[in-house]
Amino acid sequence: MRPSKRAVDELRAVTLERSVSKHAEGSCLVKFGDTHVLCTASLEERVPPWLRGQNRGWVTAEYGMLPRATGDRMRREASAGKQSGRTQEIQRLIGRSLRAVVNLEALGEVQISVDCDVIQADGGTRTASITGAWVALRDCVEWMRARDMVTGDVLTDHIAAISCGIYEGAPVLDLDYAEDSTAETDANFVMTGSGGIVEIQGTAEGAPFSEEEFGQLLGLAKAGINRLVDLQKMAIL
Amino acid sequence: MRPSKRAVDELRAVTLERSVSKHAEGSCLVKFGDTHVLCTASLEERVPPWLRGQNRGWVTAEYGMLPRATGDRMRREASAGKQSGRTQEIQRLIGRSLRAVVNLEALGEVQISVDCDVIQADGGTRTASITGAWVALRDCVEWMRARDMVTGDVLTDHIAAISCGIYEGAPVLDLDYAEDSTAETDANFVMTGSGGIVEIQGTAEGAPFSEEEFGQLLGLAKAGINRLVDLQKMAIL
Amino acid sequence: MRPSKRAVDELRAVTLERSVSKHAEGSCLVKFGDTHVLCTASLEERVPPWLRGQNRGWVTAEYGMLPRATGDRMRREASAGKQSGRTQEIQRLIGRSLRAVVNLEALGEVQISVDCDVIQADGGTRTASITGAWVALRDCVEWMRARDMVTGDVLTDHIAAISCGIYEGAPVLDLDYAEDSTAETDANFVMTGSGGIVEIQGTAEGAPFSEEEFGQLLGLAKAGINRLVDLQKMAIL
Amino acid sequence: MRPSKRAVDELRAVTLERSVSKHAEGSCLVKFGDTHVLCTASLEERVPPWLRGQNRGWVTAEYGMLPRATGDRMRREASAGKQSGRTQEIQRLIGRSLRAVVNLEALGEVQISVDCDVIQADGGTRTASITGAWVALRDCVEWMRARDMVTGDVLTDHIAAISCGIYEGAPVLDLDYAEDSTAETDANFVMTGSGGIVEIQGTAEGAPFSEEEFGQLLGLAKAGINRLVDLQKMAIL
Amino acid sequence: MRPSKRAVDELRAVTLERSVSKHAEGSCLVKFGDTHVLCTASLEERVPPWLRGQNRGWVTAEYGMLPRATGDRMRREASAGKQSGRTQEIQRLIGRSLRAVVNLEALGEVQISVDCDVIQADGGTRTASITGAWVALRDCVEWMRARDMVTGDVLTDHIAAISCGIYEGAPVLDLDYAEDSTAETDANFVMTGSGGIVEIQGTAEGAPFSEEEFGQLLGLAKAGINRLVDLQKMAIL
Amino acid sequence: MRPSKRAVDELRAVTLERSVSKHAEGSCLVKFGDTHVLCTASLEERVPPWLRGQNRGWVTAEYGMLPRATGDRMRREASAGKQSGRTQEIQRLIGRSLRAVVNLEALGEVQISVDCDVIQADGGTRTASITGAWVALRDCVEWMRARDMVTGDVLTDHIAAISCGIYEGAPVLDLDYAEDSTAETDANFVMTGSGGIVEIQGTAEGAPFSEEEFGQLLGLAKAGINRLVDLQKMAIL
Repeated sequence: MRPSKRAVDELRAVTLERSVSKHAEGSCLVKFGDTHVLCTASLEERVPPWLRGQNRGWVTAEYGMLPRATGDRMRREASAGKQSGRTQEIQRLIGRSLRAVVNLEALGEVQISVDCDVIQADGGTRTASITGAWVALRDCVEWMRARDMVTGDVLTDHIAAISCGIYEGAPVLDLDYAEDSTAETDANFVMTGSGGIVEIQGTAEGAPFSEEEFGQLLGLAKAGINRLVDLQKMAIL
Repeated sequence: MRPSKRAVDELRAVTLERSVSKHAEGSCLVKFGDTHVLCTASLEERVPPWLRGQNRGWVTAEYGMLPRATGDRMRREASAGKQSGRTQEIQRLIGRSLRAVVNLEALGEVQISVDCDVIQADGGTRTASITGAWVALRDCVEWMRARDMVTGDVLTDHIAAISCGIYEGAPVLDLDYAEDSTAETDANFVMTGSGGIVEIQGTAEGAPFSEEEFGQLLGLAKAGINRLVDLQKMAIL
Repeated sequence: MRPSKRAVDELRAVTLERSVSKHAEGSCLVKFGDTHVLCTASLEERVPPWLRGQNRGWVTAEYGMLPRATGDRMRREASAGKQSGRTQEIQRLIGRSLRAVVNLEALGEVQISVDCDVIQADGGTRTASITGAWVALRDCVEWMRARDMVTGDVLTDHIAAISCGIYEGAPVLDLDYAEDSTAETDANFVMTGSGGIVEIQGTAEGAPFSEEEFGQLLGLAKAGINRLVDLQKMAIL
Repeated sequence: MRPSKRAVDELRAVTLERSVSKHAEGSCLVKFGDTHVLCTASLEERVPPWLRGQNRGWVTAEYGMLPRATGDRMRREASAGKQSGRTQEIQRLIGRSLRAVVNLEALGEVQISVDCDVIQADGGTRTASITGAWVALRDCVEWMRARDMVTGDVLTDHIAAISCGIYEGAPVLDLDYAEDSTAETDANFVMTGSGGIVEIQGTAEGAPFSEEEFGQLLGLAKAGINRLVDLQKMAIL
Repeated sequence: MRPSKRAVDELRAVTLERSVSKHAEGSCLVKFGDTHVLCTASLEERVPPWLRGQNRGWVTAEYGMLPRATGDRMRREASAGKQSGRTQEIQRLIGRSLRAVVNLEALGEVQISVDCDVIQADGGTRTASITGAWVALRDCVEWMRARDMVTGDVLTDHIAAISCGIYEGAPVLDLDYAEDSTAETDANFVMTGSGGIVEIQGTAEGAPFSEEEFGQLLGLAKAGINRLVDLQKMAIL
Repeated sequence: MRPSKRAVDELRAVTLERSVSKHAEGSCLVKFGDTHVLCTASLEERVPPWLRGQNRGWVTAEYGMLPRATGDRMRREASAGKQSGRTQEIQRLIGRSLRAVVNLEALGEVQISVDCDVIQADGGTRTASITGAWVALRDCVEWMRARDMVTGDVLTDHIAAISCGIYEGAPVLDLDYAEDSTAETDANFVMTGSGGIVEIQGTAEGAPFSEEEFGQLLGLAKAGINRLVDLQKMAIL
């Protein structure tokens, strides 16, 4: 039995609330149960130095956690003077995932910076971030389209992400913190709306896992991501 | 005429929403119009090194802004590797202000860290932070009281803060960003529920101001802070 | 009785010694009793990036303390790897105060950097810094004038600063360290030669203060700053 | 055709040279073709603070690259003042992978720090690092055993790693730099000697990949890692 | 002809003014012509961690330059966030030089930190620092002796330093900035009162120098340091 | 008797292995006994900002040590976030030494960065670095010559370095770690192939040394450097 009483293939309650920021060109407050992430997409009229003059744009992401998003207060990274390895790993993952569905030529020579800030954490912050970031990014692109700054298809597909894991011997979908902290295996999947795999990260926290177990996790993830993509489609109607 | 059509002595719509964090011992989402600050109070079983063994506690504060809380995206301080002078100045002010109404002996040898994170900014983030931080701090103290961790009066009074300024020649209360960015004079006041002054900061942005003008700003502030303290009282009913 | 036996409205012995640096375009060693600050004004043929091409100049300030300027040796900020919040707060205040009496258009597209380094501290280092910095800045402008680099009135007025506080229940002028460390209330005032207020910072260190008390401090400050401006005028004769 | 003319399931020439350091308790110079990594295992009589007094040890890893290990000279991280996100991601992976086959209780309250320094890079530095680090770690444990510092089975299995990718449409084993920089998909696998999976990381660099393609990569990896484990066994004979 | 008209073996005017700091246990303002360095010696009731419990003390030094000590304003190291390589090299030299004449056992388990801050620079700041630091250190030791904190001979000898160089083909003593910036060879010598050599640093700025030339510089230095030691003796009478 | 049984004027076994890097334009693995340093010379099509547009090049050096190059593991500087004072002092010395034999005009407007990374340390890493760096630098220049990027004599001479010291009362050549850590006096000499002195650094670790002793060290160094230059000549045949 999962601590949350959910079925093994059951997502937490997921909501995607758009236009939550007065300032950002695109924004989305995504909730996976008690995990809440504010995603904002900011249009910037500049690209990284190594991309200048190539008529291509860039999409990048940054990730942060409020100090008391977690059960124990964590030290503020701005005060510590640097971003942790975990933070950098996550924001690189979010950026890579988003770029997998962006036509950078169609974007033109601008940069979209997507900030994913965890207001409250209960496991799965990186997968919630990717899922919400797509919505914020999409609204930023539409903001540009309404101003004739882009014309073609900038976004080539949906992108969403979910975690799976082996909890008390059983493969389960969408780990919350109670599960995540004791799961034997933890895997994150990033997939497109059409079912292509963009990123797989699987880690044995305890005993190694088998190929068969991994296949079960992948199967759960595919179904979960299909559901998340449906929720994205409803959100942008 | 103020850009917001408010009367010169009219606050923005102020709300103080409690218990917005699943994890923090006390929390408050404070809104002064479009300025939104999430305040969390975290109980920590340790005090700064210079206070150890004195049977006294400590209250400190940290302040941050999400990168796209503002009209233009700002660089994330965790990525820049340090907190700006402005950030440090504000968090020192919040901490001082809160400590002015805390009986540190009654608190016992623990620390309460109050985090004020600006989700959306439209002027007056430091005064909103202080006003909301008091509510979060109060709920943290009550959390401790419910667990018999404190007995006496830890909080000796309310504390709240407001900005005033001279905008197009007239003294006005509670500057929003449109006013703040062009005001000739800008002043922040921190006062207790019983009307004592804890902090005054007045700055001439353009021409110097006179003693008389300063008196008018102080008068506006007193009335505004009275109103904020009433709102705090209603919030904690 | 004040520890120094001074009357409540009596300044410490104040001296302003000019041209103390072989290299700087303007310099002043200011002493408020045992508080000694070396102020140098350096002309630099560049402005901050956000000001380029606007035919306007900039005045900025930096503040530092020698490690043994104080009773106990403090860690050197260059060795600690960053400036403290207190240092940044003070240097921002000095810069703002100086700019309040500078016509940046008349200065032309250059920057004057004023360094205020505390050689010995006995309370009131920020107010001594502002008072001495004006003299160094003025001599830098005259250095430019002698070379036809400026023509009009670059400095529009004098600027000086003083601290006041409530010490053993009585409002007193120009706190030294013995007073500053036990004063109930501490306030810094920055005013122009013509009596305009540029900055007010008042902080209750212990009990909150009343409006009446604050008025008494302001009265002391006005008289003290008048005296400091007279001393500046004598110094530049 | 692969640039190196290798068969799709052919590893580069792999060598594992032991005892290359005069000082380290265990060391291994691992070469995967032109990728050369020096791995040293250092025994330290301390554990991280959060592990003190638990009679358990710790294994951690750090990763670095000499500035001219690559085609273009990279900035030295010690000079830049911080480790890049990529460096931190890799060293976290190496540490996790090693710990998957260490019985931390059997190790006792000491820490083994494994340093993986890339002397020359030609793709696959992280997988070479893991494969060589196991040998260095094993020799460090044997050094301890020879001194009666450990008795039981500290290492529970072999651990080795390999990259696979889809290059010009075909799944291939052990990408070198020429392949890695143009591969459509890049995946790293970490597995134990008994075939358990410890870590999977797959990333679509261009188009998303399918479940079937991922299965082919996993198949190649299993065979490759079997071969690497055989080489480890021969190396420690 | 030297720019200053000095004879080749002539020191600049050297003064050693004691007790210039209200707070420091020992202090000396040393001037070598226009090079002015404030040296303070601070007694601290602690030693570095690696020296604890050994009944021995430590002497260390830090060096800094005010931003406008030089012809062009330099960036403040506290603002840059780190000490330059040059600064660290100099402060290591000062510390080593002082320790060469200190009996650390006789000092007891305390640390004396000597700060050398360059108020104005005109060449030779490191040699002036060492020469003045000895006086500050000596007065700190006497301060301790007057309080019965030390009894035996803590200082075993004098220590002083001077630069020499080859300027326009001729060996000269005590380079000022005009000479230092164009000298072909530059050497610093640190010697004890009894003529022992503690440190030699010679650098060819242009063409390499010969053994014979080096011997001439050493001869000049010996005479110069004898003179500096005499000045130290007069200063502490 | 020296711990290594060497004669007082006997170098350790010195080898200079060229072309050890697949990527660098010039490289040399230098060994002085158990001290092993990898030197790479990297051609970069840029010069420092202050040298731009002057048709002159630059040669600079960086120095590093692998964490377990030494008997006890040292903290990685990239992880500590800064280079130590010792590291900066050494890399400045290497750069200065190399530039003493480079005709920067003949080099053209490019920079050669020489990295000296200590793979294993047993005393004398800075002198081994300089000796090996010259070989790497020379091969980089020849690489340029083969591509018609330089024509004239870029290198004007050989440069090599050696340490000497007074060990158990006797002057000895080429200190290894066992000697270096207990020597009373330690001196490093950098000289050209034609016998000119480029850098002398002598430090009394215990008692001061005399002029006569220093002369003996210099005599040993001259002979040792002659031998090193011969080895360089043989290496580049």
